[in-house]
Amino acid sequence: MDHAHRAYCQNVSPGGDIIICTRREEDWVPLTDEWDRLSCWRTNCFKMGINTVMIMAVLLGVSLTPSLTTQAGLSEKVLVFPYETDFSFVALIPQKEMGLRAFTLCMRVATELPEERQIILFAYRTADYDELNVWREKDGRVSFYLSGDGVFFHLPPLSTFRSSLCLTWESRTGLTAFWVEGKRSTYQVYKPGHSIRPKGTILLGQDPDKHLGGLEATQSFVGEMTDVNMWDFVLSRSMIQAWHYGHKVPKGNIFDWGTIEYELSGNVLVVDDD
Amino acid sequence: MDHAHRAYCQNVSPGGDIIICTRREEDWVPLTDEWDRLSCWRTNCFKMGINTVMIMAVLLGVSLTPSLTTQAGLSEKVLVFPYETDFSFVALIPQKEMGLRAFTLCMRVATELPEERQIILFAYRTADYDELNVWREKDGRVSFYLSGDGVFFHLPPLSTFRSSLCLTWESRTGLTAFWVEGKRSTYQVYKPGHSIRPKGTILLGQDPDKHLGGLEATQSFVGEMTDVNMWDFVLSRSMIQAWHYGHKVPKGNIFDWGTIEYELSGNVLVVDDD
Amino acid sequence: MDHAHRAYCQNVSPGGDIIICTRREEDWVPLTDEWDRLSCWRTNCFKMGINTVMIMAVLLGVSLTPSLTTQAGLSEKVLVFPYETDFSFVALIPQKEMGLRAFTLCMRVATELPEERQIILFAYRTADYDELNVWREKDGRVSFYLSGDGVFFHLPPLSTFRSSLCLTWESRTGLTAFWVEGKRSTYQVYKPGHSIRPKGTILLGQDPDKHLGGLEATQSFVGEMTDVNMWDFVLSRSMIQAWHYGHKVPKGNIFDWGTIEYELSGNVLVVDDD
Repeated sequence: MDHAHRAYCQNVSPGGDIIICTRREEDWVPLTDEWDRLSCWRTNCFKMGINTVMIMAVLLGVSLTPSLTTQAGLSEKVLVFPYETDFSFVALIPQKEMGLRAFTLCMRVATELPEERQIILFAYRTADYDELNVWREKDGRVSFYLSGDGVFFHLPPLSTFRSSLCLTWESRTGLTAFWVEGKRSTYQVYKPGHSIRPKGTILLGQDPDKHLGGLEATQSFVGEMTDVNMWDFVLSRSMIQAWHYGHKVPKGNIFDWGTIEYELSGNVLVVDDD
Repeated sequence: MDHAHRAYCQNVSPGGDIIICTRREEDWVPLTDEWDRLSCWRTNCFKMGINTVMIMAVLLGVSLTPSLTTQAGLSEKVLVFPYETDFSFVALIPQKEMGLRAFTLCMRVATELPEERQIILFAYRTADYDELNVWREKDGRVSFYLSGDGVFFHLPPLSTFRSSLCLTWESRTGLTAFWVEGKRSTYQVYKPGHSIRPKGTILLGQDPDKHLGGLEATQSFVGEMTDVNMWDFVLSRSMIQAWHYGHKVPKGNIFDWGTIEYELSGNVLVVDDD
Repeated sequence: MDHAHRAYCQNVSPGGDIIICTRREEDWVPLTDEWDRLSCWRTNCFKMGINTVMIMAVLLGVSLTPSLTTQAGLSEKVLVFPYETDFSFVALIPQKEMGLRAFTLCMRVATELPEERQIILFAYRTADYDELNVWREKDGRVSFYLSGDGVFFHLPPLSTFRSSLCLTWESRTGLTAFWVEGKRSTYQVYKPGHSIRPKGTILLGQDPDKHLGGLEATQSFVGEMTDVNMWDFVLSRSMIQAWHYGHKVPKGNIFDWGTIEYELSGNVLVVDDD
């Protein structure tokens, strides 16, 4: 039993979607009488003294597929990853298969993490490949990987205030760019002719290990994410700018934040976006 | 007698609310003939050669309660803390008790202090606890403490130009954020379930010592503060933005700058906000 | 004869108010045939081979009063100080005596000088005192001196782009502030009760030595200055903002750029402000 990953958790919302954990017993403050105090090992939490109902994500060393109830729709909601963990993530279930030869991925993101810290922003992995990863690198650059060496961009730094970030890529030409607050970076040519493989797992908050098991706390996302949308084509400049300003755009046909299917795992809060 | 804290002071306003002090006798310039030259030890000033009327805050080593006249209302006024001291502060008297499970605290603040200098921005203390402290830390981060370990935020630096700064916290979820110029920082989860204790002392300009007595010059605030307001609930984003732009918002029910009750101590100037 | 201060000069404007100098003979390019090539020692220039008519400022070691023709009015004009010298300056003749207990001084200024270089921005000196000096210090701060120790401000850096800079000071309270692009810095309390002495010399471009004679090239201003205005009272925030945006404000009653009386000395160009 790994005491370093012990945690004391309780449910603080009637809907069951806000679970507060502390790492140290002495920090534990009872907030509700709805549930008993819970004891957790890694992300497995049990009601103590009653029965051993598992309430949080099953993230055994050999599986990346959470066994949680799938929920849908995050309109006007923000995901808060409150501290560094190797067990908190949100799995996203796409509306259509991820075999892609072009895409647009957009999100709004804010973080307090220091500049020199690596941060996973988006991870899509099939059995053998890191199919599509977006990172904030240790040197502050933002990077994009399609199963192999990545491509790096100098963008304005992520900060405690929300940044709007899009990424576009098209296989035919390899043209790829990030869009920050609706403004396009310089194009780079990256993996023309490549195809992204289907039938993988999409995570926010953690980078799944190359093979099986362990997630690394030092790569985890800490902060807020909202409005994650994905299309299987490249949006025009005017569409990306419209999205940035919150205007109406064609709904993401891979993910649409308003109807997105997702599974929460570990300590991730879903809060109103006021 | 501690010569290091000697000061030469005189009243330069008819209402008695602007007192100019110098630390060195040779810097003393007579500005008014209304009063005689004063000699001070710490914050106790005496008319010399006439009688020993105390005109400034009594801050004896054993008391943090100033014996000054309480004044009310700072509409269109700015507090100027002109230099580093261990005796200048403004005590605020709340309209209702500070037993709180949520709050919004807002202020406008400007400082010339160097980046690496710790600065107290707000201090609320009961007998045994630093109940609610806001600091600018040595590393430039802004921090928030509720009787114990604090939480730290990377915000745009305070500067010689006025920043609008709000802080919101709610006990139920622990969600806490700073708002700079109306923009929210990333949420952090801090002390869910905690309650702030009532019946303490609120100071601007100094951090009261853990037990009795000494204030530290190297933690003091130097610069300008205005528009300090506090509510016992979390204001919405639109309300905080309205406050930032100087529009009408519900008046602070703990402090409202227009009617705030306060006691000046030491060398703090109240000047028109032009 | 001090060869370090030799210069080769020519007049390039019919009115005689633009004189171009080079420090090295090999840099000399004849621009006009109106005048012959000139040789100068310090700021005394002579037509070579014709006769020794002095055409530039007399700045002998014992005098700071240039013997140049006084000119008036710089509306729509910019002063360009093209390189580092110890002989180029503009003397300003005030409309009224400089015995002051309050003032507002405004200018627009741009410089390419490196951050760590001291720069004189305004110098007013009586026989025994540096009455009113404004500097950009080696550490990047902007400072203000009234015959003695100064007061320092952290402002946005001066740059190759024009900054609008005002300074206000009032003797009664000592309240002093810089205004950058119409935004006020934090107030500092500086020399309450002090009076500025009349009957001195005002220079742009150089800091006059404490006693007689030498100016220091390493303190000289290099860059552009325009719209230097001065009032014998503190302008309101709205007036300073109006001035910043080029709107109509009460004309400076000490200097008004449109009618200002001045004497050019050394290598200072008066060019149209396009």
